[in-house]
Amino acid sequence: MYTYLNDSFVPEEKAFLHISDLAIQRGYGIFDFFRVINNYPLFIDDYLERLFVSAQEMHLKIPYSSNQLKEIIFDLIRKNNLPVSGIKVILTGGYSPDGYQLPDKPNLVISQKPMTFPPPVFPTSGIKIITHEYLRDKPHVKTINYVVGIWIQNKIKEHNAADVLYYYNGIVSEFPRCNFFIVTDDNVVVTPGENILEGITRKHVLALASEKFKIEVRNVTLEEALNARETFMTSTSKRIVPVVQIDNQIIRDGKPGRITRELFDSLVMLEEKELMKGSK
Amino acid sequence: MYTYLNDSFVPEEKAFLHISDLAIQRGYGIFDFFRVINNYPLFIDDYLERLFVSAQEMHLKIPYSSNQLKEIIFDLIRKNNLPVSGIKVILTGGYSPDGYQLPDKPNLVISQKPMTFPPPVFPTSGIKIITHEYLRDKPHVKTINYVVGIWIQNKIKEHNAADVLYYYNGIVSEFPRCNFFIVTDDNVVVTPGENILEGITRKHVLALASEKFKIEVRNVTLEEALNARETFMTSTSKRIVPVVQIDNQIIRDGKPGRITRELFDSLVMLEEKELMKGSK
Repeated sequence: MYTYLNDSFVPEEKAFLHISDLAIQRGYGIFDFFRVINNYPLFIDDYLERLFVSAQEMHLKIPYSSNQLKEIIFDLIRKNNLPVSGIKVILTGGYSPDGYQLPDKPNLVISQKPMTFPPPVFPTSGIKIITHEYLRDKPHVKTINYVVGIWIQNKIKEHNAADVLYYYNGIVSEFPRCNFFIVTDDNVVVTPGENILEGITRKHVLALASEKFKIEVRNVTLEEALNARETFMTSTSKRIVPVVQIDNQIIRDGKPGRITRELFDSLVMLEEKELMKGSK
Repeated sequence: MYTYLNDSFVPEEKAFLHISDLAIQRGYGIFDFFRVINNYPLFIDDYLERLFVSAQEMHLKIPYSSNQLKEIIFDLIRKNNLPVSGIKVILTGGYSPDGYQLPDKPNLVISQKPMTFPPPVFPTSGIKIITHEYLRDKPHVKTINYVVGIWIQNKIKEHNAADVLYYYNGIVSEFPRCNFFIVTDDNVVVTPGENILEGITRKHVLALASEKFKIEVRNVTLEEALNARETFMTSTSKRIVPVVQIDNQIIRDGKPGRITRELFDSLVMLEEKELMKGSK
């Protein structure tokens, strides 16, 4: 398996960074992650666009144009031939002589891993999640900072939960790696708009939802989430997952909701359309 | 120059971590940093104690006892023979197969660098700082997360300032790498007590101050800081630095204060006493 490191393909087991890198010294870097299906990187343009926005916000210069990066990614896919996989692009702060100043040149790592994704079939049961009061640093940027996300894994397991929903001052925001949605009693599909990372799957789900339902991007209180008719999460690797319990509160009848299912089916169809484009 | 990596000494230029390390993948790790003077690690016990507290808080298992770690550090000092230098101990999340789960085994990196420290002479002028509204994640733990600290360097330079003081909801906390103190008109030495990393130099300065002055560890508003008689910062690498301007506000006559100076002199004497112990 190959990894692309700065300017060349290296075997994954030989992809190392020197300890002076600002990711190791100061946790400084950005990344993005997308799925590969049938050797095609799904919604690649969306992810690369976000990568460039993250880089600019964090003063990191990507040493390639978006098209060059895409070429490298397609090369990597050809070399590795992992038809169903995930690709992660990491851009670290780079090698800093004093371990604090941001150097001109970041380090670029593009790695691909085989990965199983949930089948395109709506799940018959939903998940339990817990909540945690926390506001991410620079939530709109996809930084590598998951200090709280990693730290809280023990607590998630202790509660037999699948994930943790962050809230702050009574307003819910997002999961460490997923976005959050609710469906109201009036069939309105609502997702938080502030203090979140704008997920690519979130964007597609919002667009699909707007074709059939009223959508709202606005603050959602924890109280409103607990009393919503349906709640679900979205992410690149999970698509749409129904949430049926938040802390001790069962969401309505505790079963995946009807509108969640409709959106799931629409998303699977959108993916199939995109894959047709890729196979042309 | 040697670096200690997990279980052996390697030349610094060969100290690499694989890209699957959670510091690179998720910015997850802790560290500590102390000075070496005359080949002696100043206040080493204080720093190691804090390292173990940070590790425990972040679910990281240091693979050595405190005494074993101290032995390794003394070995490193002997090997490198850099009489005036800084030593950084980093403990990362370790190699994670899926880039998210925290593995059992962290990676340990102990590196030493030649370093010049300010002379033990009280500076004749103070520094200008800016302020920024921000609350660190897990501020009481010395994590490697400096996303905002690194990101804001440009702004500090643009304002011809030397550093940035964080505040949140009107309460000041700390600098990215230093603690903050004020001296009131009543000669009370005050430092924030919440949402901060408890610096080792801060601890010593508080102890020294308590011998001569009233001390208070409590919330300090930005308003109070701007109107204090004296303000200064403390850190391992800087000792005590007088702050004479915060944003556009000159602190009193804009000169380093009398009590700041007394504390500086006491700190230098404490260091000398500690070095005598080391040379025995």
